[in-house]
Amino acid sequence: MAKQLVNDVPTIKPIETGSVREQNAAQLDAIARYRRFTNYLAAAQIYLRDNVLLEEPLKPEHIKDRLLGHWGTSPGINLVYAHLNRLIMQHDLDMFLVTGPGHGAPANLANLYLEGSLHDFYPQLTFDKQGLHNFIRRFSWPGGFPSHLYPGVPGTIHEGGELGYALATAFGAAMDNPNLIVACIVGDGEAETGPTATAWHCYKFINPVESGAVLPILHLNGYKISNPTIYGTMADEELGSLFTGYGYQIRFVEGGENDDLDAQMYAAMNWAYGEIRAIQQAARQGTPQVKPQWPLIIMRTPTGMTAIKELDGEPIVGSYRSHQVPIEDPKSNPEHLALLEQWLRSYHIEELVTDEGRPKAEILEQCPVGDRRMGKNPHTYGGKIMKELDLPPISDFAVEVDRGMPSRRGGTNVSSMEQVALYLREVIRRNPHLFRIFSPDELQSNKLGAVLDVKPREYEWPVPPHNEKVAAQGGQVVEVLSEHNCEAWLQGYILTGRHGLFPTYEAFLNIIVSMMDQFAKFLKISGEFPWRLPVPSLNYLETSTLWRQEHNGFSHQNPGFINSVLNKKANVARVYLPPDANCLVSTMDHCLQSTGKVNLIIANKQRMPQWLSMDEAIAHCRAGASIWPWASTDEGVDPDVVLVGIGDNTTLEVLAAAQILRDELPELRVRVVNVTDLFVLQHKSEHPHGLQQDMFEALFTKDCPVIINFHGYPSAVQTLLFGRHNIDRLIINGYREEGTTTTPFDMNVRNGTSRYDLIIQAIRHAAARNPRVAACANSMISQYEYRLADHHNYIQTYGSDPKEIVEWKWH
Amino acid sequence: MAKQLVNDVPTIKPIETGSVREQNAAQLDAIARYRRFTNYLAAAQIYLRDNVLLEEPLKPEHIKDRLLGHWGTSPGINLVYAHLNRLIMQHDLDMFLVTGPGHGAPANLANLYLEGSLHDFYPQLTFDKQGLHNFIRRFSWPGGFPSHLYPGVPGTIHEGGELGYALATAFGAAMDNPNLIVACIVGDGEAETGPTATAWHCYKFINPVESGAVLPILHLNGYKISNPTIYGTMADEELGSLFTGYGYQIRFVEGGENDDLDAQMYAAMNWAYGEIRAIQQAARQGTPQVKPQWPLIIMRTPTGMTAIKELDGEPIVGSYRSHQVPIEDPKSNPEHLALLEQWLRSYHIEELVTDEGRPKAEILEQCPVGDRRMGKNPHTYGGKIMKELDLPPISDFAVEVDRGMPSRRGGTNVSSMEQVALYLREVIRRNPHLFRIFSPDELQSNKLGAVLDVKPREYEWPVPPHNEKVAAQGGQVVEVLSEHNCEAWLQGYILTGRHGLFPTYEAFLNIIVSMMDQFAKFLKISGEFPWRLPVPSLNYLETSTLWRQEHNGFSHQNPGFINSVLNKKANVARVYLPPDANCLVSTMDHCLQSTGKVNLIIANKQRMPQWLSMDEAIAHCRAGASIWPWASTDEGVDPDVVLVGIGDNTTLEVLAAAQILRDELPELRVRVVNVTDLFVLQHKSEHPHGLQQDMFEALFTKDCPVIINFHGYPSAVQTLLFGRHNIDRLIINGYREEGTTTTPFDMNVRNGTSRYDLIIQAIRHAAARNPRVAACANSMISQYEYRLADHHNYIQTYGSDPKEIVEWKWH
Repeated sequence: MAKQLVNDVPTIKPIETGSVREQNAAQLDAIARYRRFTNYLAAAQIYLRDNVLLEEPLKPEHIKDRLLGHWGTSPGINLVYAHLNRLIMQHDLDMFLVTGPGHGAPANLANLYLEGSLHDFYPQLTFDKQGLHNFIRRFSWPGGFPSHLYPGVPGTIHEGGELGYALATAFGAAMDNPNLIVACIVGDGEAETGPTATAWHCYKFINPVESGAVLPILHLNGYKISNPTIYGTMADEELGSLFTGYGYQIRFVEGGENDDLDAQMYAAMNWAYGEIRAIQQAARQGTPQVKPQWPLIIMRTPTGMTAIKELDGEPIVGSYRSHQVPIEDPKSNPEHLALLEQWLRSYHIEELVTDEGRPKAEILEQCPVGDRRMGKNPHTYGGKIMKELDLPPISDFAVEVDRGMPSRRGGTNVSSMEQVALYLREVIRRNPHLFRIFSPDELQSNKLGAVLDVKPREYEWPVPPHNEKVAAQGGQVVEVLSEHNCEAWLQGYILTGRHGLFPTYEAFLNIIVSMMDQFAKFLKISGEFPWRLPVPSLNYLETSTLWRQEHNGFSHQNPGFINSVLNKKANVARVYLPPDANCLVSTMDHCLQSTGKVNLIIANKQRMPQWLSMDEAIAHCRAGASIWPWASTDEGVDPDVVLVGIGDNTTLEVLAAAQILRDELPELRVRVVNVTDLFVLQHKSEHPHGLQQDMFEALFTKDCPVIINFHGYPSAVQTLLFGRHNIDRLIINGYREEGTTTTPFDMNVRNGTSRYDLIIQAIRHAAARNPRVAACANSMISQYEYRLADHHNYIQTYGSDPKEIVEWKWH
Repeated sequence: MAKQLVNDVPTIKPIETGSVREQNAAQLDAIARYRRFTNYLAAAQIYLRDNVLLEEPLKPEHIKDRLLGHWGTSPGINLVYAHLNRLIMQHDLDMFLVTGPGHGAPANLANLYLEGSLHDFYPQLTFDKQGLHNFIRRFSWPGGFPSHLYPGVPGTIHEGGELGYALATAFGAAMDNPNLIVACIVGDGEAETGPTATAWHCYKFINPVESGAVLPILHLNGYKISNPTIYGTMADEELGSLFTGYGYQIRFVEGGENDDLDAQMYAAMNWAYGEIRAIQQAARQGTPQVKPQWPLIIMRTPTGMTAIKELDGEPIVGSYRSHQVPIEDPKSNPEHLALLEQWLRSYHIEELVTDEGRPKAEILEQCPVGDRRMGKNPHTYGGKIMKELDLPPISDFAVEVDRGMPSRRGGTNVSSMEQVALYLREVIRRNPHLFRIFSPDELQSNKLGAVLDVKPREYEWPVPPHNEKVAAQGGQVVEVLSEHNCEAWLQGYILTGRHGLFPTYEAFLNIIVSMMDQFAKFLKISGEFPWRLPVPSLNYLETSTLWRQEHNGFSHQNPGFINSVLNKKANVARVYLPPDANCLVSTMDHCLQSTGKVNLIIANKQRMPQWLSMDEAIAHCRAGASIWPWASTDEGVDPDVVLVGIGDNTTLEVLAAAQILRDELPELRVRVVNVTDLFVLQHKSEHPHGLQQDMFEALFTKDCPVIINFHGYPSAVQTLLFGRHNIDRLIINGYREEGTTTTPFDMNVRNGTSRYDLIIQAIRHAAARNPRVAACANSMISQYEYRLADHHNYIQTYGSDPKEIVEWKWH
């Protein structure tokens, strides 16, 4: 039976604000005066370097040399901030603000100055003329506040430089914080981005018992840099229909300065708060909430309101021309200077400060105090409130490895993911409300399903039967097919002091590489402020790796995320490639204890041979790289060739090559090295994990040929090794961007990383150094070149190679 | 006046399908039989390597060794495909299909086999038993069809490996193709992604006169890999409200196999086609269409329908268990083998083929013929139908450069972007409907506004007044604050044979790096099929570069996209860093003529000194790198040091350093080299643009110190130079991830790329080779170290440095 949908959109009923104003006239007037102050401060920051209280006529020398900043969004932020303050004070709320349009920093800073949070960290920003001068001049000044929000701004957990992630970040912060409300301003520019468009669904993942709430305020000011916005051109009915479909109740706050915006916003905030608490209280009293409709405020106000209406006949307020600096040349254009003065004087700042330049009491009374100030909310200082995880002893999760030398290693086949899932399951069990896993629908595929044993996935909308591992009952595992949501949730979660992990297909982490870039920048700058203690690290677990994409092929082969992490600051970036399950468990244990880092861990999910006992694994991971003597034939000195495995699949080929060489060419002295911490390759002067040259040579010798079999693009290793001496001797194999749905061994052949390729390379390069190798080099090389050609023929003709070695076996 | 939105969602009226069936019974039955065939073929491809017509009892040896593929989505794709075929035949439509769930390839392939498109390219896939055997066995077989759609599948312009981009790609293909309808299946997994969530807005950018239509079919099968989907758990009312808000009319096709899906889909297709043509006809007859409501079909069918209902007591149809291979072990489990046989026999394939294994005529009659087959639609072979652009002579856009030696160069200040915008404006004027620019709201900011002189931006929703450069009248420039939409539109546009450009802030191109990765893979594989001629290149213009982020600071500094392009295949990847406006115009002209490439062009938007005449620029760009003799003091032989600029801002510092050295240390023989084509650094054996070693040494000498001042992360250059001999002599400066809102020169100081840093490096390294330099080395080094310290103090204290040289001047 087909159904036709009649486009009968929701109706919007106007609500009288008259009674709101009547009952709260004094309060609304006080808020309006407070907003006059913050609007003045926002404009003044953009323009003034002197005469900041307009005590004398405005002159060109009072204007900053470089006019930077975004005025357009600032009055809207000020409107929201003032009313959030009111709500906080009235209900003693635990609340802070995530500002999507982070380039509205002049507004945020204005409020933070008045509430005194700024002064707590910047003692020169006092409540007097000098403090006001310092504050206003400091904006967009080298060494001062940059033009966007950043970690140096109190209460900030999101910059808003790159748009799209504010809303989901706010949800991440609200998770497992049942008393917290995170207000979030979403600009209508940001709303056009894909990540924001899907973030509206986030409430479907918020359990109203265990988590707090997000109060989204969609700010339609109508303009981007030089275009109208999509959402700004949508009618109220369209918006109402859209966001009802997303699951929200909506209230509009709409109009210009003359439309009693304070009364509207006052009523809207009361309504939103009431709805939030009603849902939460009902749920917490045991009434299951089926598809609860959380509140959303849509604020449609003209961009740049309260500025001058026109300039040279062109509109300013309500036009893209007020997006950044509405009057661009007041320093050189006397007429424009006069207009600027008229604009700035329209706020009558002199009425709002004492003779000493201190904001009057009635202004300061509009701000909460202590930790209720949004710039001082403890959640926004995640490093300070962070609790350490209760981690189980990793020995409980050790894989037994038979170390009978040399032939027994590799006899046990285990999936690293299945093993680390057991460890993670215990981490979850021990750390309710403190540790979460965010994954893009890939947990089961990635063989991490055991983490669901403690509690099923959290999902609030009713699901069909036979979904035993999904339930609306809270939990620590959340899955959504949006890497953007996963990443932003995790960022919001850890920036508020909790711990988490993002396991994912290797190929698709690049979807959020620019979010990682921005986060690494956030961490780097955070390190410059001692009052921001390090937060738990951002931990990625990349699996379903490229070498085992026999199901999905070429589109699922992309190790490029490694390269991106390498470009981050050395004090932030870490990349680990544990070669077996014990190393993975040890690495995970290390990363979950670390703070202030971006940790990228890469491991295969398929069953693979195991090499190291847990004790050996711990020592190996601590070193970052070691010689594996049991696989080597150089007896620790003077090898003819060094074979280096970095990554589990590529190490498997190294070990197989070493074993064949041991059997067939025992006179070749082979050293086998495994690197598990990629940054050891870089010099110590470049990265704290880098090896000093003497340590580097202890592993890789001074001058011996070194054949590196790397998991990812060779470029990553080339970058790290660039400064090392004598690098002509290094041969670097890796993923050459060749692949399809084919067998694992064929993937190695296509990319030149197979055991046979390694054997040929080893003999060829060692022959020059060892005459006994030289004697038989040609015949052995021919033999293995023939073997490669033979493999190629089999694959082409039959789709498989009967001689193929899918899993490494000891010969 | 605050308004409250009452959540009065649209009502859904059921429509009787009875009359549809009555009137079209025979046709519906024929379609149902056709679907039995395609469903059988989809299942058979996943399972069978032999006995493909079930002529004998099913035995383990008939089953493939490796069972790959995604069954769950396949029956839904088959339903859509069959009815699109019917619509095409009935109306002689120009139509093809973009399949978001590209892992449903078994379904697409089944239809392509029956319509004969496959046979046109794979002659062994004939309509007989052997052909059927070849076809069924070929799926997920090394050297055969991989498990996802890919360029080897006829009619494919989108793989669907990485999810999120199908819908916007379809819109890109429809642009400027007024008679084309692009059907697009969006899976409910994909619908959760951010890029898809915002792509629903794409119709707001489609002019119904000049462009064709997209017919989206949202396929709710309810499950992802192992989770229910968000959209699958939304009620019809929620979906109706959401998509009404997005601007669509909706019809649901809903139910299982017993719910007369064919009649429903038949009616839905008629309705959708009628709506599309009604909008188009009205618009084309001159009636402006205000917010036209385009049709959307929501198909809610159980995942994996027509398979077995249960396995071992667990549901299969309508459960995540049918997402991939519903029965995993038929080869080893006889009971499961019997179930598989029962399933496969339920389609009664024997009724649908002749004794020779040829599909019966009544089956084949369900497919269009010739170019109306969706596998043969000419638009999907963009390389074949591509028209070359009519490009203006670049000499018309030359910047005059005074070449009076040596002191006059650099005297003209021009913005490269403003200059190239004049060229692009003429390209637009000459090539209506053949060339588009897609930009994320940054055209004006990037100083490319001149391109709007021909026609304003295209945007269909009514915009407020004072938006003189936005109009609903078609056009070649489209802006949306979604890099994902821009990228997907451009991909869809060029894959269907047209040309385009994506200008953007440098920092934010990384938002779509994984889309570029996937596209580069698509190009690489396309090259393996001679019937896919190269399409126009994917051209990026990165500007608002990191060195001039004095307005936006650290969050807007990210040159990482370069590194990602370097990891792509050498026959696809190109990176250009033109040092001035003439070089940029020449480079743009080259890229717009190229095919089959990913061209990344990077240039600053601010006014900068100009160096080369247009003739010199053409020669320089052709070479990719040259010595600039007018800036050098080595007279072409035996320099003490080579200074290399790569990128415009970093070259400016090189030239300033060279000039200071010429004045202050004339005994130092400096060679200045500029690199505009980044890949010349790599060896010829690695990249077609790479230099042979002798050519490399002709520029950079054999052994002289070479100081490279690079635009991006040093790692990019390190990678390219890795294989070169004697690289210890290379010093590589670049972006060290240091920045804030500061002055341009301060950015260079922070990252060690300033003229003073270069002078110090040059003297230090040359001193060892030239005794006359050694004599005065220490004093000059001290002088410039002092200058750097002095700068630092100024910036810290005053926010600016009065001695600062923002724009290079000749001394």
